[in-house]
Amino acid sequence: MAKGGKKQWCYFFGRKSGAEGRGLGKEILGGKGQGLAEMVSIGLPVPAGFTIAIDACAEYFRLGRKLPKGLEAEVREYVRRLEKETGKRLGDERDPLLVSVRSGAARSMPGMMETILNLGLNDRSVEGLATITGNPRFAYDSYRRFIQMYSTTAMGLSKEPLEQKLHDLKARRGVKGDPELGAEDLKALVAEYKAFYKANMKGQDFPQDPEQQLWGAIQAVFNSWEAEKAVTYRRVEKIADLKGTAVNIVQMVFGNKGENSGTGVCFTRDPNSGENVFYGDCLINAQGEDVVAGIRTPMRLVELDKLLPQAYKELVKVRSILEKHYKDMQDLEFTIEDGKLYLLQCRTGKRGPSATFRIAVDMVQEKLITKEQAVARISPEDIERLFYPVISPDIQRKDLDAARLGAGINAVPGAAAGKVVFTAAEAERQAQLGAKVILVRKETSPEDVGGMHAAAGILTATGGKTSHAAVVARGWGKCCVVGCEGLDIDEAAGRMTLGGRTIKQGEALTLDGSTGEVFAGELPLRKPELPKAYHTLLGWADELRTIKVRTNADTPYDAENAVRMGAEGIGLCRTEHMFFDTEERRLAIQEMIVAEDLASRQKALAKLLPFQREDFHGLFTAMDGRPVTIRLIDPPLHEFTPKDDAGVEKLSRATGHSPEAIRRRCEQLHESNPMLGHRGCRLCITYPEILEMQVKAIILAALDASKKGKPARPEIMIPLTMDPKEFTILEGQVRAVADALIKEAGSRLEYMVGTMIEIPRAALLADRIAERAEFFSFGTNDLTQMTLGLSRDDAGRFLPDYVRSEKDGGKAIFRDDPFQSLDQDGVGQLVRMGIQLGRSTRPKLKVGICGEHGGESRSVKFCASVGMDYVSCSPYRVPIARLAAAQYAVEAKAAAKAGKGGKSGKGKGGKKGRK
Amino acid sequence: MAKGGKKQWCYFFGRKSGAEGRGLGKEILGGKGQGLAEMVSIGLPVPAGFTIAIDACAEYFRLGRKLPKGLEAEVREYVRRLEKETGKRLGDERDPLLVSVRSGAARSMPGMMETILNLGLNDRSVEGLATITGNPRFAYDSYRRFIQMYSTTAMGLSKEPLEQKLHDLKARRGVKGDPELGAEDLKALVAEYKAFYKANMKGQDFPQDPEQQLWGAIQAVFNSWEAEKAVTYRRVEKIADLKGTAVNIVQMVFGNKGENSGTGVCFTRDPNSGENVFYGDCLINAQGEDVVAGIRTPMRLVELDKLLPQAYKELVKVRSILEKHYKDMQDLEFTIEDGKLYLLQCRTGKRGPSATFRIAVDMVQEKLITKEQAVARISPEDIERLFYPVISPDIQRKDLDAARLGAGINAVPGAAAGKVVFTAAEAERQAQLGAKVILVRKETSPEDVGGMHAAAGILTATGGKTSHAAVVARGWGKCCVVGCEGLDIDEAAGRMTLGGRTIKQGEALTLDGSTGEVFAGELPLRKPELPKAYHTLLGWADELRTIKVRTNADTPYDAENAVRMGAEGIGLCRTEHMFFDTEERRLAIQEMIVAEDLASRQKALAKLLPFQREDFHGLFTAMDGRPVTIRLIDPPLHEFTPKDDAGVEKLSRATGHSPEAIRRRCEQLHESNPMLGHRGCRLCITYPEILEMQVKAIILAALDASKKGKPARPEIMIPLTMDPKEFTILEGQVRAVADALIKEAGSRLEYMVGTMIEIPRAALLADRIAERAEFFSFGTNDLTQMTLGLSRDDAGRFLPDYVRSEKDGGKAIFRDDPFQSLDQDGVGQLVRMGIQLGRSTRPKLKVGICGEHGGESRSVKFCASVGMDYVSCSPYRVPIARLAAAQYAVEAKAAAKAGKGGKSGKGKGGKKGRK
Repeated sequence: MAKGGKKQWCYFFGRKSGAEGRGLGKEILGGKGQGLAEMVSIGLPVPAGFTIAIDACAEYFRLGRKLPKGLEAEVREYVRRLEKETGKRLGDERDPLLVSVRSGAARSMPGMMETILNLGLNDRSVEGLATITGNPRFAYDSYRRFIQMYSTTAMGLSKEPLEQKLHDLKARRGVKGDPELGAEDLKALVAEYKAFYKANMKGQDFPQDPEQQLWGAIQAVFNSWEAEKAVTYRRVEKIADLKGTAVNIVQMVFGNKGENSGTGVCFTRDPNSGENVFYGDCLINAQGEDVVAGIRTPMRLVELDKLLPQAYKELVKVRSILEKHYKDMQDLEFTIEDGKLYLLQCRTGKRGPSATFRIAVDMVQEKLITKEQAVARISPEDIERLFYPVISPDIQRKDLDAARLGAGINAVPGAAAGKVVFTAAEAERQAQLGAKVILVRKETSPEDVGGMHAAAGILTATGGKTSHAAVVARGWGKCCVVGCEGLDIDEAAGRMTLGGRTIKQGEALTLDGSTGEVFAGELPLRKPELPKAYHTLLGWADELRTIKVRTNADTPYDAENAVRMGAEGIGLCRTEHMFFDTEERRLAIQEMIVAEDLASRQKALAKLLPFQREDFHGLFTAMDGRPVTIRLIDPPLHEFTPKDDAGVEKLSRATGHSPEAIRRRCEQLHESNPMLGHRGCRLCITYPEILEMQVKAIILAALDASKKGKPARPEIMIPLTMDPKEFTILEGQVRAVADALIKEAGSRLEYMVGTMIEIPRAALLADRIAERAEFFSFGTNDLTQMTLGLSRDDAGRFLPDYVRSEKDGGKAIFRDDPFQSLDQDGVGQLVRMGIQLGRSTRPKLKVGICGEHGGESRSVKFCASVGMDYVSCSPYRVPIARLAAAQYAVEAKAAAKAGKGGKSGKGKGGKKGRK
Repeated sequence: MAKGGKKQWCYFFGRKSGAEGRGLGKEILGGKGQGLAEMVSIGLPVPAGFTIAIDACAEYFRLGRKLPKGLEAEVREYVRRLEKETGKRLGDERDPLLVSVRSGAARSMPGMMETILNLGLNDRSVEGLATITGNPRFAYDSYRRFIQMYSTTAMGLSKEPLEQKLHDLKARRGVKGDPELGAEDLKALVAEYKAFYKANMKGQDFPQDPEQQLWGAIQAVFNSWEAEKAVTYRRVEKIADLKGTAVNIVQMVFGNKGENSGTGVCFTRDPNSGENVFYGDCLINAQGEDVVAGIRTPMRLVELDKLLPQAYKELVKVRSILEKHYKDMQDLEFTIEDGKLYLLQCRTGKRGPSATFRIAVDMVQEKLITKEQAVARISPEDIERLFYPVISPDIQRKDLDAARLGAGINAVPGAAAGKVVFTAAEAERQAQLGAKVILVRKETSPEDVGGMHAAAGILTATGGKTSHAAVVARGWGKCCVVGCEGLDIDEAAGRMTLGGRTIKQGEALTLDGSTGEVFAGELPLRKPELPKAYHTLLGWADELRTIKVRTNADTPYDAENAVRMGAEGIGLCRTEHMFFDTEERRLAIQEMIVAEDLASRQKALAKLLPFQREDFHGLFTAMDGRPVTIRLIDPPLHEFTPKDDAGVEKLSRATGHSPEAIRRRCEQLHESNPMLGHRGCRLCITYPEILEMQVKAIILAALDASKKGKPARPEIMIPLTMDPKEFTILEGQVRAVADALIKEAGSRLEYMVGTMIEIPRAALLADRIAERAEFFSFGTNDLTQMTLGLSRDDAGRFLPDYVRSEKDGGKAIFRDDPFQSLDQDGVGQLVRMGIQLGRSTRPKLKVGICGEHGGESRSVKFCASVGMDYVSCSPYRVPIARLAAAQYAVEAKAAAKAGKGGKSGKGKGGKKGRK
């Protein structure tokens, strides 16, 4: 902001002069500064002051912790304006102006940044304050507090010696609480504090010049931005877009001036339930920090009505004004000085999972906001938080810290507690006995799926957010912590070590999948219930959105769950997951793999057929007429082979092949880069009999289901297609098998044949593939791997460097992990190209996505923008996708209204979805 | 071809009526049919006849081995025309028309297809022939031969019993050769043959009706197309585009009618040396098959001048006419009947490696063809054949068969012989002792490179044409056979087994890299010399081409070799190959890998610096001012780790880390999909100190070389770029290091910084990358892997199914192996897009290719067509690339002239190949 060609650093606010910074964003004034300016400009009572903009802080660091040019003069000018507005002077011996100096970044960083109160007091002005308030104890207590805050915050002296002096004084006086100390006691303490200051500051006296105090305080606030705890906080919270903190210099008002004064914190609605009631705590004759410090027990806000009814009435009016103004629940700090109400802070209030939905829905019903605004306001995390169990909030942090062993990557949120087991088999056994178990593995493989499903939570030593464990667990919404680097597992000895402690099999462990933390013992968990408002809001989302939401589900259980979550079909059924379900199935698929000729392979496949047929029948029944996309076998065969001697022996007995021969076959299947190897439809090119068995199972199951009044709509999907002719060959085989069965049954059955688009070449040749393919489903997990040349399983080693911000030692090459949020620049180009090419030869081509991205908000919006018909995601992500789809529709409508004609343009964004 | 709305199957030729099929291609008439039609139409003496087109054969098989509609009637009509032209009738009792029935596909398939001669003889017409020729012996010998050919070829009877009867007859008569048998003998033999026929054909008599004979013969020729040996031949020769064979029915002429008759085979120039002399063999009073059968020793062609000077003179005239007509060396078959010359066949003559070049160059000098035509006529294989040693052609096939153990994939052509060793270390040791060794491994790894270099040839049990062994060996032009599936290696016991035979370490083995065959023992080899004409022709290629040719070279040795081969710069120096050269280097890189902090890593890197500096200095010196593109470290670090206990121990001693710790670190480096893992510039993002060391070595070496009068032009290349910002970060680091060193040296040095484009995303974002990158080099090996989702190392399992033709049990999804010839449909789109986008932001962007494709003819032409500045390939492929580049220029010019405006356009690569 420039003023007369000069950069403007400061923005004044006060009742008489108004708010200079009105309408400026948080990016300039910070959250607190913006709130103060806004309140002043709508006429609410706020003490006068000014905000030093965030730019000044950024410039301060750019200059190597030097004050930017012009700042000093401007602050001096603004102090003069403040003195004029308040009619008081800093350091005045009779009636001094006192100010608070507070930080305020664009986003709230609770407890991370510094504050200094009562600035302006010195040996002489403290006397003036004593006289004018008639309360020397108050004056010296204020001075004592100021010296302590200034010494520790601005000068970095240790807090403990000062606290000790206060403690000693109370001991000498034989009193317990601060309030029992008299003015003289505190005056003596001030002397002690000043002496301490001088002793520890190389003989310098505590600054008596208020201006010097002010500069010390301002720089202290600046410096707190780069203090270790603040940097850590930002890294943990993934805050990378902030430039610094603003500084708010505000006239002090005092809630501790007597029984006619007070202070409080309140929310315009109940932040836990969301109920439309005024909610908060207050204290009479107290300062804000007394509330925070917990020295006295605050009373409920409504009680203020009895004690200071005038102030309370004013506060209720403020509440209403603020909600009308901000159209959202607000969080306020106020002080009453001699009966007069002052607002010290106002911001959008944090709220619990249920309250989020209730407040949004209520406000629509109160006509404060529109449905569109309500939908736009909900975040994916708001939904997530509703579903996952959490460690009971009743547990004290110190107890948590005592139990904490370490942390890994928070792969799937929610908490879980149970007995530790180290093998999938043991997990299944224990679960059958009714135990809750935590499966702890170095890493998981498809063979572990049974045990993973049986476990309450999963902990692995390796892998990232898209490792096998994470992806599988996410599909079930099951708590999962991966990549726990300090974790050492001795499977043979049945024990794990983490954070220096050893946990044996059968001992209890608790995981917090939301934070990645691992705790010893079984902590109590709490599972939230879905509030009514959630259903109302998601219903609105469904009305608004233009793109369908399907689910990735492999079992009737998943399918039913997903339908409850709002899924409109299955976008991806991974048929191979069915092969792991029971030993009988595992053996049959293994028998198929070790078969040495077509006849034995067909014999083994014939054993699998009834299982698959039954599974598909279950799916069709569960989905009751909704479309079901079934992907033919995808993973490389080695994923199915026995992993240990016992497995080899068992297979040997089952097939008659020698263990030796089986091991040789398993070894043969080893690949250097299995991701790019013999998998997907390449298996069906080599072994068409697998395709035949699977298609037979699908069609027979569909015929069965349809006969029983559950009309089936199978969409048969060829995975890993890389060439039009390859697709044509397989499509021909699929149709040959399917049509023969349908004809034989004398029934009618509509089915579709389409393909995954997950190899770059398939996107490039999509026009030719679409000549035969009836639908495309973008498999953006693999498409991301191949387009970026990036293995999901291996990227954990270096991808964090690409995603982390520069400040946190990363390179900030990617805005997001491309496996979590679709890489719109690169992969997105191929997706867009694939759709455009595909529809150039088949205008009605049905297009969806079935990668992990289908449940990620930004990616869902992208999918809608490029004209997909649906997204498909894990059952637990379905509500998030419904919401994101609705938000896209709202944004697109708004953009269209703003005359931007949607979001088209040549490259980016592109057209919104179909109506 | 339709005639009056009806499909035309037959094409007549004869002196009186001319050639109906003139101007039709081989695709219709087959090679033989086309040659006959062509000769007739330019007035050369050819016996009359007609050709049944290839379409008829294709249709025959399409109908399930049934004669196409209309064919019978048309053949009957053409037989009448032939009778009219010749004035004789089939089966005539006085002067019968006899015909030969021969196959003739569009490409020569020597010995694969069937022929039946003397058709038209029966019990009565043989008498007529005896009378009219006055030579009953001749007549009955012809009849006897016809029965034999017809019985075996058309009816599938066994040949041996008939041969035995002839043998028995000679024994009974006490004679040795056939000519000693008289007419009566042969007449008796005919009776015996006919009895044999009847006995073995369910009582049917040998057909006396010439028309029945003709249909039997025609169908025999058709059927021979799908006979096992022909199918196998086509598979081996990768002939996939032929539809069937034509059938040529031609009046018989006889070279065995007396001393005034004869037969011969000749080339219009010497097919071995290429010298412009008439070259061939002939026999007086003989039939063609006598020459082939080797019963009599033929005489040199020139001797015919003395014996039948008139016919010879005519033949010399024919030679000249044909060369002028075809503008290429021709291979002729002729027969002289009663002094009259007849030409029976004419085709472009096969020739030896040297002759190919000499003939082309001579013909330019004789003004028969242009330089462009000469260049267009040479194939990549013609060049290859010049360079590689071959197993001495003096060795008999039966001796070869006896020594043959089996075959693998012919990865790098040429032959090699030497002692078997099973480890790279042993290969190096033996080679130092002066032994020629064949390195036999299950598969090779970068650690084996020293041993591979020391070996004369390499044999592996696994891998395909682009496996590690194949790629490395190809770079050196070293004989290499890979994927030898039957090969069983017991390294511990020091022996291998193949084809049921065991070869111990130290025993001799011979490899033929051109065929993939493996032989026991040390067979004699022959190494061709480069003929003068080769240099002349490649010089013309250099004049014509518009795109430069560089080489992939890692050592001064390779570089010098490549310069001799015509390389104009280095397009790819793989710096990491230098790390394997000596144990000292290996240890230094390993020390770097196991280093636990930056300081130790830098210490280890400091040890590598002088080695790299020295290597680069050698390269710059060898290239003497030519540009040198140096790629920073590319492979994943695990490729450098010690692979056995001895290596671990050694590294432990060198670094002080425990073997345990080293093993742990090596394990940590294991990746699921290393191809998509922590490699390429990702290593430099994680460890910028590696980049710093390498850039330092490059720049210091360049400064050194320039100071010594060898101006260096380094082009520093960042591998595996996937993002513009990633490139910008690394480019900045490169320039920081380089500029500081140049400034410090007070010198001037031009250098460039660019990137590989080998990840699809890099091609998609090429415009943004080119904002900072000065050059692109398409790494089409990796780009192919990622675009197709296809691991080069694993594709051997299923890719053959994709490439093999349907007839050979494959799916013919790809025209070529995409790792051998660039996939123009898919990868080509990304290449084209990358270039266009790149030049949109940097019009002068230098663009090249450094994948294996840079030395493959079709791919080189593609690179030229999309506007690349250069291709880069292995030294031994440089001449092939020079040739292909010139051929592209010739084709593009021709296309432009033809008004097609070059080869740009949106899609497909382009125009036809050479004539």
